[in-house]
Amino acid sequence: MTRFMDVHRNMTGITGPELEEAHAADLALEKAEDVHFEGAWAGPESGTVYCLSNGPSADAVQRVHERAGHKADEIHAVPLSV
Amino acid sequence: MTRFMDVHRNMTGITGPELEEAHAADLALEKAEDVHFEGAWAGPESGTVYCLSNGPSADAVQRVHERAGHKADEIHAVPLSV
Repeated sequence: MTRFMDVHRNMTGITGPELEEAHAADLALEKAEDVHFEGAWAGPESGTVYCLSNGPSADAVQRVHERAGHKADEIHAVPLSV
Repeated sequence: MTRFMDVHRNMTGITGPELEEAHAADLALEKAEDVHFEGAWAGPESGTVYCLSNGPSADAVQRVHERAGHKADEIHAVPLSV
């Protein structure tokens, strides 16, 4: 399993409840792809949302996001952390 | 205080020890700007590094990174998290 960071842009004005709802949708769908979404950080002003996940591939992470209705704009493996 | 996510690009080939050294440099310099770097995730293949911090402003975060020798390419406030 690899850790991934993905980025969603153009989410300007996102609210706390909307972020929670989006994350809950990912969690409800992630098992089918053997993915786990660990957390997410959102900036309503910049419209940027970052999601941290573990999974077998970037494609698997993207499939969960697509089924949840919010395809990521960018996904990068981030195997190193501190 | 606000939480920020910043992004460094063109870090292709970064190693675990290099990430640790860069993070330690930030930690050694952050107090002067009232910033705290919570963690960082790096992808040697994509050359992308994401840093999560708390601080008074994006400029303060950038000043710490500049003094540590690794200016960020992008910094966004991320006040929402889940």
